[in-house]
Parts: sequence; C-alpha cells; structure tokens
Amino acid sequence: MPLDLNSDLGEGFGPWRMGDDAAMLDIVTSANIACGFHAGDPSIMRRTCELAVAKGVRIGAHVGYRDLVGFGRRDIAIAPADLRDEVLYQIGALAAFARAAGDRVRYVKPHGALYHAAARDQLLADAVLAAVAESDTGLALLGPAGTELERAAGRVGVRFVGEGFADRAYTATGSLAPRGVAGAVLPPDDAVAQAVSLALSGTARTVDGPGTVAVTVASVCVHGDSPAAVEMARRIRQALDDAGIPVEPFG
Amino acid sequence: MPLDLNSDLGEGFGPWRMGDDAAMLDIVTSANIACGFHAGDPSIMRRTCELAVAKGVRIGAHVGYRDLVGFGRRDIAIAPADLRDEVLYQIGALAAFARAAGDRVRYVKPHGALYHAAARDQLLADAVLAAVAESDTGLALLGPAGTELERAAGRVGVRFVGEGFADRAYTATGSLAPRGVAGAVLPPDDAVAQAVSLALSGTARTVDGPGTVAVTVASVCVHGDSPAAVEMARRIRQALDDAGIPVEPFG
Amino acid sequence: MPLDLNSDLGEGFGPWRMGDDAAMLDIVTSANIACGFHAGDPSIMRRTCELAVAKGVRIGAHVGYRDLVGFGRRDIAIAPADLRDEVLYQIGALAAFARAAGDRVRYVKPHGALYHAAARDQLLADAVLAAVAESDTGLALLGPAGTELERAAGRVGVRFVGEGFADRAYTATGSLAPRGVAGAVLPPDDAVAQAVSLALSGTARTVDGPGTVAVTVASVCVHGDSPAAVEMARRIRQALDDAGIPVEPFG
Amino acid sequence: MPLDLNSDLGEGFGPWRMGDDAAMLDIVTSANIACGFHAGDPSIMRRTCELAVAKGVRIGAHVGYRDLVGFGRRDIAIAPADLRDEVLYQIGALAAFARAAGDRVRYVKPHGALYHAAARDQLLADAVLAAVAESDTGLALLGPAGTELERAAGRVGVRFVGEGFADRAYTATGSLAPRGVAGAVLPPDDAVAQAVSLALSGTARTVDGPGTVAVTVASVCVHGDSPAAVEMARRIRQALDDAGIPVEPFG
Repeated sequence: MPLDLNSDLGEGFGPWRMGDDAAMLDIVTSANIACGFHAGDPSIMRRTCELAVAKGVRIGAHVGYRDLVGFGRRDIAIAPADLRDEVLYQIGALAAFARAAGDRVRYVKPHGALYHAAARDQLLADAVLAAVAESDTGLALLGPAGTELERAAGRVGVRFVGEGFADRAYTATGSLAPRGVAGAVLPPDDAVAQAVSLALSGTARTVDGPGTVAVTVASVCVHGDSPAAVEMARRIRQALDDAGIPVEPFG
Repeated sequence: MPLDLNSDLGEGFGPWRMGDDAAMLDIVTSANIACGFHAGDPSIMRRTCELAVAKGVRIGAHVGYRDLVGFGRRDIAIAPADLRDEVLYQIGALAAFARAAGDRVRYVKPHGALYHAAARDQLLADAVLAAVAESDTGLALLGPAGTELERAAGRVGVRFVGEGFADRAYTATGSLAPRGVAGAVLPPDDAVAQAVSLALSGTARTVDGPGTVAVTVASVCVHGDSPAAVEMARRIRQALDDAGIPVEPFG
Repeated sequence: MPLDLNSDLGEGFGPWRMGDDAAMLDIVTSANIACGFHAGDPSIMRRTCELAVAKGVRIGAHVGYRDLVGFGRRDIAIAPADLRDEVLYQIGALAAFARAAGDRVRYVKPHGALYHAAARDQLLADAVLAAVAESDTGLALLGPAGTELERAAGRVGVRFVGEGFADRAYTATGSLAPRGVAGAVLPPDDAVAQAVSLALSGTARTVDGPGTVAVTVASVCVHGDSPAAVEMARRIRQALDDAGIPVEPFG
Repeated sequence: MPLDLNSDLGEGFGPWRMGDDAAMLDIVTSANIACGFHAGDPSIMRRTCELAVAKGVRIGAHVGYRDLVGFGRRDIAIAPADLRDEVLYQIGALAAFARAAGDRVRYVKPHGALYHAAARDQLLADAVLAAVAESDTGLALLGPAGTELERAAGRVGVRFVGEGFADRAYTATGSLAPRGVAGAVLPPDDAVAQAVSLALSGTARTVDGPGTVAVTVASVCVHGDSPAAVEMARRIRQALDDAGIPVEPFG
C-alpha cells in the first residue's frame, strides 16, 4: 500500500524564515502550507504554492489559531462559531494562491494547539469540519485517526485521512503518547523503522515496551525545521523507497 | 441609464463596530466588504456576506493595506509584488465567505490609501489588477475613472467600473477635487442633486464654480459611518427613485 | 469609610472607539487604561492619561492578553514566564504616557479572561505579581479579594486592593456569582443600593436570596460602554455622594 | 578617542530568531534592542536586556514603525503626532525590561525606514525627539550626523551621538552613499580599515574615488544577521583593539 509523506511548510513570516522548504519539497508528497494565522504571509504562501506545484507536491491548508507570537501552539478558548469562520478564512486565502499556481487546495490539516484541541473536543472538531465542508472543493481532512476530528468528518461527509508520526511511540489504544512520557520520542533509527512498519503492517511502537499497536495511517508527518530534521526525513523517504513502498499522495 | 450605489461595509473588528451595515444594505446595490487587513474579521465577513445575499446586494472585496491601527488610510511603501500577494489573499478569503453565503465575489475595490495610490501609480495599479486577473471569477474593478487603475484593468482585460461621489466636487479635468480644497465637499442638498445629475447626464460640479464636467460613473459611493451619513444615503436613494433612475447593480 | 470607583477606559483601537471616556472620568476616581494588547493604542493611551490627569483621576494599567480580535476575553494558555513578560511590557508602555501626562501609574488591574484566570490559578497570579513587583513604582494590584491574586500579592509584598461590583450578586462564600446563574446580575435600583451597602457595611447581596455576605471591597467597578451604563454609573456616584460616603482614590 | 560599536539585537519574534545576539554582545558596546513594533516580543526583550547587562553592554531602544511583516523597512505615512506616541510607547516598554535587568535605557535609535525618513523630514524628526525628550531618563539619540535628527535633538536639548558605518562609502558632503550606487558597499578589508580611520582620523571613503571625507562618528554600527556578518564585526573589533583604540560606550 502506498504511503503519503506530509510536512509543515511556509512557516516563515515577513523577514523570518523557518525550515528548508525547498529540501522538504523534494522529500514529501503533501505540503501543509501555513495560511497567515500562526505563520505564513501572502508572499510566502504564493512562493510555497508555486514550489509545491513545480515539484508535484499536493497543497494542503495548514490552519491554525490567530497567534503569531505563540506560533499557534497555545490553546485559545475560541468560540466554535468563530473558529469555523477563522478556518474558512484561511482555506479561502490559500485557495487563491493554489489556483494562481495552477492547482488547488486538496486537504486541510489543523496546526499545533488546534490539532490537539479539535482531536479531543467535539464542538471544535465540528467547527473545523463545517468550514471544510462549506468550501466547494472536495477537501479531505488530514489528522489523527480515532479522534473527534475523524468522527466530525464522518458526520459531514468529508473524507478523513489518518496521519501518523514516524518518530513517536503510541499508547496501547493507538493514540499518540504525549511528548512528556518516557519513550514517547523515538531515536532516529527506530523512527525510520517505524515509518516502514506503518506502511507495511499498519503498526507502531507502544510507549511502554517492545510491543506494537495497530494504527490507521495513510500519511506520515516529517519535519524540516532543522538540518537534522531534514536529514531524518530524507532517511525515512529512502527507507520507504528501499522497501518498495510507493510514496505518493493519499487518495 | 441605471446607477449602482456602493458602500463600504463590514468595517468593524473584534469587539468594535463601525457604521450601520443593516441600514445601508437596504439602500445600496453593491457592498464593498472589508477583508481583514484594514478592517473586518472572519466572523464579520461571514455575517456581512450573509446579510448582503439576503438583501440581494452584490458582494465586492474591499481590499486594503495591512494596517488595522491606521484603518488602511496611510500610505505604505509596499513592493508591488507584495501588494499583489496581499490583494490576492484578501480576495481569496472573502470569496470563501461569499460562496458559503450562496453567492460569489463580483468585484474588487481598493480601500483608502491604496485607492489613491493605485489610481496614480502604474506599478501599484498593475499589482492590484494582476491579483484581480489571476482570480478565477471574472471580477470587475471598481474605482476612479481615467486613472492608472482603469488603464491597468484595460491591460489585463478586467472590466472597469467607474465610481463617483455624490458629495464631492470635481476638477475641470474630471478628477476628484482633494478634500482640502475649498468647495471640494458639497453640502447635502447639492450632493443629492449631483447623484441625480451623475446618473442622468454624467456630469458633476466643478470645484471652482457653478460649472460642470463630464465624468464616467456607473456607481456612486455612499457612506454609512454615522447616522447623518445613513440619512444622506437614504435621501440620495430616494432622489434617484423619484427621478425614475433604476438603482441596480452595475453590469 | 471612603470608596474608590474604577472603570475600564481607553478601550478603542485605531479608528474604533468604545464607551464615553470623558463622561466616565467625571464619575470615577481610578481609570483602568488599556495598554495595547486587548485594546488601546499609543495615541489613545496618551489622550486617556492626559484626560485622567486633568480630571484628577488616578491612572492604572489595565493589562490583558495579546488578543485584539477577542478583546482579551478568551483564555489563552500562555506560559507563566511569557505572561510575566507581557504584563511588564504593558505596564512599562503605559508608565511612559502617565509620566508624560505629569503623573505615574498607581496600580495594575488584569483584564477580562486574564482577570479570572489569574484569580484562580496560582502560577498565573504569581506571574502577574512578579511583573508588578519588578516595576519600580510601588504599584498596587486591583482585583477580586480572597483569590490567588490576593495571595500572590501578599507573597511579593504588593499592596492588594479588593474590587467589587455594584450590579452583581455574590455567593455565600463572598465570591462573585457567575453571570450565567439566575439572579447574578442585579437590576439598576438594586445595583445602586449595593454600591452604598458595600461602602457602608461591606456587604453584598447573595445570589440565592435576600441574604447578604461580607465582602472586602475598597473599589467598585462601573462600566461606561453604553449610554445606559454611563447613566447607571452616574446614579451610583450620586447615591454614594448622597449617603455621605467619600468617593476618592484608594490608599 | 574611544569608539562605540552598536548593533541591532533582539530582532526575533515569537518562534522566529534573527542573528546571533550572544556572539554580538561579546563584540559591541551598545545594543539597539527592538521593542515589539518591527521585531522583538516581551520575552525576547527581557532576555536581550539581561544578556546585555550581564556582558556590560549598554541598552538602547531601537524604535520602528508598527510593521512586523515588513520589518519596519517600509515607509509608512504616519502622522507626526502618532509617531511621537508610538515611539514613546516603545521606549516605555523597553525601559521596564532594562530596569528589571538592573540597568536602564540609555539611548534611542530609529530603525529601518524610520531612520531614513526622520533623518530627512523635520516633522518626523521632531516627533521622534519629542518622545525622547519627554522620557524622564536623560536619553541620547543615536543616528546619522548632519541630518534633521541631529537638528531636532539640538532643539529639545537631547544629546546627539553620530553613527557611522564601516562597510559603507560616503558622499563628498559626508552623508551615506545610497546602497544602489556603485561603490557604496565596501569589501570586507576596506570596511575594517574604515572602522579604524573613522576612529583615528574621523574620515571615511567617498563613493566616487580614493578620496576621503570628514564624518562625525562616535559609534559604528555592525551587523550580526549572518555568520559572515558576525565574523566581519569580530574583525572590526579586533582591528580597533590592535590599533589601540578604546572600544567603549559613548558618553
């Protein structure tokens, strides 16, 4: 079965840059592009869309809380109705750049604190999915399987794509082990192995031992915010290629 | 010949409101809706689009400089390429709300300092029009006739709609007299009369006397930011109706 | 015993205004002036400080979350260390305007969501008080008595001033009844009476009946965000004057 | 005669960093610290102040236009009265962190577009200096000699400190040659030599040949936004030390 690789891109703002987008676009098949609320500005959005199209990488809207200084990583007690509006705004803005680059937005992935909040809170999940559903472009929702986000997608008939992490252990129930827990973050070699096992057998390491758990993952997230992260992403891509696993956009 | 009436709407932000949008939407036929850069936030944009659609008023993107504290009224020396990106971002964001409300964006009008800067600067005008043209929706450009904006629209094949002002005098060359000039702002009765003369004979008062000048105006801008302004807009609408001039969306 | 009246002022931003500051400054003795994070901009801060000094009203820093669109009314999961920095920044900025107006900042009052969060969360309360204490001006902290804010003030030796509300009922334990509870918001006549009873006997209405509870209040908060609110504030001031209660700054 | 070396520091924002502040603070004697308008946030301001104090480097307020996305490098047609308010706000905010770190703000340097605009426009220069003068801390103004900034400082009795650039040629009149002009930017070896000649003889290279011109420079600006820039700053510092020129804070 093929596997999609996705990465968070276009995360600079004004004079500031983050990560090596060009390098990552040679590795991944789906680009989660920031839309100006937690990162990204219009010029960065255009360039990232153009680069993604030039490299044949699929464009997704990486929507986040309106919080540049906190990079969208802090919970904000936003009213669900306002969240729906903020998500729709971001999708619409990115859609204009995707079209100008000759393609269109194919999926939405919540960012940072919103990713986790909407995974566990039905009202927030429904708000995100309402914005996705009222967009007219047949968007998918990329996020953690088995959560409120998946259930909300089901309620509005939006296609859900389960996302996993190569470098993170899981709990026995198949959910991501929190970063703080011992063993939650895998060392590089194990992360490379887990990317392959996610694709071949749909299994991930459990946090509390040598055991594994089944997880539903059609896309694996890799990071590019440091040279070490880019190198790790490259190793994962290479291992997948070596194992004969087709790395291609989901769907 | 029919005349369009347009007004700047959705100009609140967060807890702050500006003007009586509901009243104005009973008067005008085109709504210039702020897109979040000089005013407007996602929730206001949704509500204003919904209200416009409910009242049969056409939706336009009122694009401005990224300058909430200055309300887009201060010149910013933005690079044309960045301006193009900022305009496209705003159009895309509003388009999402227009579609969600059951309609679409029909035109773009630059706001405040951008309106005047793009009217006189070819590079800025071309940047605005490049963003309009690369949107996929057959948008028109609403702005002052005989300016760089009109010429830039012509270069990219975007339909241009000339806008006039009922309460402002013009120079002998048909351009708007600057606010600072004596006689530039007409008293209420004269403004009402000018709205009618713009529609019936395509003429406006000149700043330096009783003379008139031909101006190309398919839409007249009225304001709603104070009760007196709303009342003036109502009088203009009434006078047009009384004169048998069809008040309807341009095009 | 004298009573202080305080009000939230300077809550406009850029082109937007909120409330009738000039009217309120004739009624109150302490002005909680927004510092640019939830509301307020540098020019509004200067004008409000100048007006407060001209009317003999004491200047306080009304510090809030960095959240203009949410007006500081939404919880943000800010790290306590970052909160301390944001509060110190706001105090410092307002201090410059207070000094330029010929006075200085006398106290700090947290705004909106921060007010409630810091009242119940020790880490946030300590962060706010750390910023207050490291300012060099002998500031007081104005807030709800009996909360983490009061305890945090005690730990760092900052003077605490208990604040009450005329138009709100209290629970039997002396804390404010939540707005959602039936009877939590008092009708105008009762609010006027409660302002007097807070000053004369230190008692407030309990939410669940005709009983009263002792509350420690040296300052009562009145609002000015609508003509009705200003009128209510005026009635409270008049009732205090009529009862012979000196209305003057705390301390 | 001693020479001061200054550098722009604290120019990150939220998750984004710029330059190697720690390295530069080992080289320079004056730190121009961003105040949150063009760059910098409260936590970065605190850390940069603490680091400067720990390394014995003097703290200056690097005040700029409110323009994060443009990094304060774009002209904004701000009203002089508003500019005065924005500058005072920034000075006040930084002053709180300087005091918390055990020192105080010693000078103000305008940043980017404001630096150049206030150098040539008397109204803007007077606005900046009005804010400096109404601060109560005996601040100096660091900027280009022979400009409106120097004259405005003279009018309000603020001490002016002339700033020069090691890596830039000057015109025959002693003003900085614009970057676009051929020969305006000196190669590394010439820049190092010019730093020494500025200190020893008060002369700089002219843009149009081997000649020199007298310039009044008490402080030289060096940059740290790239490893090459830091290395250049180190070479300049070393050359000054080798030439026996005391590198120490102005004043």
